[in-house]
Amino acid sequence: MNTLIRPLLVQQTRRFATSSSSTISLRPSSSLLSSSSLRPSSSSFSSTFTRRTLSPLLASHSYSTMSPAHKLCMIPGPIEFHEDVLQAMATPATSHVAPNFIPALGESIELLRKVLFTSGQPFIIAGSGTLGWDMTACNLVEAGEDVLVCNSGYFGDRFGECLETYGAKVTHLRVPIGESPKLAAVAAALKTKKFKAITITHVDTSTGVLSDIKGIAEVVRAESPETLVVVDGVCSVGSEEIRMDAWGIDVVVTASQKALGAPPGLCVMGVSERAIGVFKARKTPVANYYANWNRWLPIMNAYESRKPSYFATPAVQNVFALHVSLKQIVEQGVEQRFVAHKVASAKAKKFIHDLGLTLVPTKVEHAANGMSAVYYPEGVAATDLLPKLAAHGIVAAGGLHVEIAPKYFRIGHMGISVTEPERGHLEATLNALKASLAECGYKGAL
Amino acid sequence: MNTLIRPLLVQQTRRFATSSSSTISLRPSSSLLSSSSLRPSSSSFSSTFTRRTLSPLLASHSYSTMSPAHKLCMIPGPIEFHEDVLQAMATPATSHVAPNFIPALGESIELLRKVLFTSGQPFIIAGSGTLGWDMTACNLVEAGEDVLVCNSGYFGDRFGECLETYGAKVTHLRVPIGESPKLAAVAAALKTKKFKAITITHVDTSTGVLSDIKGIAEVVRAESPETLVVVDGVCSVGSEEIRMDAWGIDVVVTASQKALGAPPGLCVMGVSERAIGVFKARKTPVANYYANWNRWLPIMNAYESRKPSYFATPAVQNVFALHVSLKQIVEQGVEQRFVAHKVASAKAKKFIHDLGLTLVPTKVEHAANGMSAVYYPEGVAATDLLPKLAAHGIVAAGGLHVEIAPKYFRIGHMGISVTEPERGHLEATLNALKASLAECGYKGAL
Repeated sequence: MNTLIRPLLVQQTRRFATSSSSTISLRPSSSLLSSSSLRPSSSSFSSTFTRRTLSPLLASHSYSTMSPAHKLCMIPGPIEFHEDVLQAMATPATSHVAPNFIPALGESIELLRKVLFTSGQPFIIAGSGTLGWDMTACNLVEAGEDVLVCNSGYFGDRFGECLETYGAKVTHLRVPIGESPKLAAVAAALKTKKFKAITITHVDTSTGVLSDIKGIAEVVRAESPETLVVVDGVCSVGSEEIRMDAWGIDVVVTASQKALGAPPGLCVMGVSERAIGVFKARKTPVANYYANWNRWLPIMNAYESRKPSYFATPAVQNVFALHVSLKQIVEQGVEQRFVAHKVASAKAKKFIHDLGLTLVPTKVEHAANGMSAVYYPEGVAATDLLPKLAAHGIVAAGGLHVEIAPKYFRIGHMGISVTEPERGHLEATLNALKASLAECGYKGAL
Repeated sequence: MNTLIRPLLVQQTRRFATSSSSTISLRPSSSLLSSSSLRPSSSSFSSTFTRRTLSPLLASHSYSTMSPAHKLCMIPGPIEFHEDVLQAMATPATSHVAPNFIPALGESIELLRKVLFTSGQPFIIAGSGTLGWDMTACNLVEAGEDVLVCNSGYFGDRFGECLETYGAKVTHLRVPIGESPKLAAVAAALKTKKFKAITITHVDTSTGVLSDIKGIAEVVRAESPETLVVVDGVCSVGSEEIRMDAWGIDVVVTASQKALGAPPGLCVMGVSERAIGVFKARKTPVANYYANWNRWLPIMNAYESRKPSYFATPAVQNVFALHVSLKQIVEQGVEQRFVAHKVASAKAKKFIHDLGLTLVPTKVEHAANGMSAVYYPEGVAATDLLPKLAAHGIVAAGGLHVEIAPKYFRIGHMGISVTEPERGHLEATLNALKASLAECGYKGAL
């Protein structure tokens, strides 16, 4: 067993006195119980525990992620938030140029570089992840230029529509539902014409398919080195391994509400220095006002230099919340976070397999680590299962891919639900799934 | 005295036991003390008081709007938020299609109609108020069409730039700093060509100038009835009188963080049925993806019909917070809110005048009711006054209009700081201003 995995299992032996964990049965190997000193960031975890235990918001809000009053939000985003993140959301009125806000945004920009392993330029803008598509399309692509969209589901279609809105000529490299783009097909497509950019949906939230962005970026560098590599990481940043600079990724688009662990409301991006250079060399004006990096670059630079600046009012409270979550992510270790999501996903996938259910991804090797998309077994429908899961206190999501929407459901396993397994979120979810299937009359492998 | 004003003064006699109001000296006329029964919405205020007193967040967060630990945010947005609004910001993780979120967004849409006095279509979208300019420009104006911008400061310049980004031909009707657009000049400009739209900055946050949108709309209807009347109400919705349908206003652009009383992060709009018709009849495609009403109209309609729908993930917690604030605004009475802002503004302007200071607006008749822009007196600079105000616990804003930025400062008086005068925010601000000016060595009329 990878030594990085061990400490995560050790965590499972720690419990809050307040945790209502009656539905959880974790039995970590007793041989691991003595190895807590291996855990690199145990001190930061301990302080997190203390903060959480003492958190006045937790008490005041009657909010516990295992409280019967709160249904666990186990969809592929928004995900469960740490109590300290929620408390930051309730920060009293603060000017967007206040001395306590400037470093929160400035540090968040710096922390994003660590999360994305890049020396490039992060952006944090009020909006949703979808706004990041516009930012990519209007700033990096000029009308008439070709873009190759590696299309593994709903979000590939939509990103393509967004690119076309700004005049790009889009070629879709489509794969059957549940498949991920093949490197040979990408290489062949890149030979057909000169593409300004290639887009890859890292995790297509509609199918739970994980694309091999490292492999595709290598193919691009070999076949068409000038092509910008754009990753839609809305459902992957913080849960799947991404190394922008080492892998040659030019753009990562994401949002606050998935594995970055903060409430929705922020479009978050990382842009390579190379892509910023391409942006600065563009010949035609940017055909968007709010999404124009000419407006936002000076703002991001000012806040990072701890100076106030103004283009549009930032979502102050949301930035405070993201800042808290990014600090937790970096303190706890980004590498360890990748491992934690793999461990949780393996557990979820095994449980799903043992139940006799089938994943939407055709192979577990290209299934996302932060979510699972699962076909209903014969005789069970969305209208049956989801309400029963809700009655067990678990919010799961229905299907989204239009061709198979009524046939499958989706579970998220990201953020604190997997990095702090002592919360018991995943076990509660899997146990509820088993119980709900039984209530639906499913016999299968139960 | 207007009978609507009386009850507001009566409020000033009510105090929290917990309020640290040592700097406040309010002496309402004793003859008014018995008239509390006149107050139309006293019951809703009472319940607000109870909620606030009991608010666990208030206690847990050590947040009181008069607490020494929290500096009062008296800038022209973001403004001070009600404790219940902040508590809504800390709502635990909730799916954007959850049964408790759908009515929060749906009702917010309905409540906005009441706030804007319109039967038109509200929009609530993750982003800032600036995004509302893009929404207006890309949805209602087609490339090559003329737009008249009534330009009373910084925000007129910027809205013009946004319109030009989408191909509009912009004519600026500029006024000297501190002046508001003259009706005769608007009428004359409308005779020069056919304008698709006219934009008016209702309150230019950079100058504190209030434009006569009712009068301008009348002129438009007389001179060029097909021209769409677009109001930038970012710094006016919730503090200045706006009656969309009665006055013939087609678009109001605003944001959550000013007199709507919620944290920043939401672009909020009201669009007349006529303007939606113009949008639907456009000949060219909308040149923006995220801001495209073709995407958002079905979403707004679905949530209003209490059905889930998805285009881009809404800022769930921010919408919960806006919902709480909109409910308070409508329960307390929109008409009464207008009066409360006029009363508070008159008080602020008189105090400023009595101190011997000069407003940026050349006449008090066209000065905003939700903010005051004030020239520093001779010998006092921004670097002197603002830090001293901060030391007194008051956050004010510096100048923004590029031509006079170092010469003036700005104070916001919106939302709970004026509708709940018993909080003492305005008095604390004005007293701090007087004390800070004295500390700066200003003798004037102190």
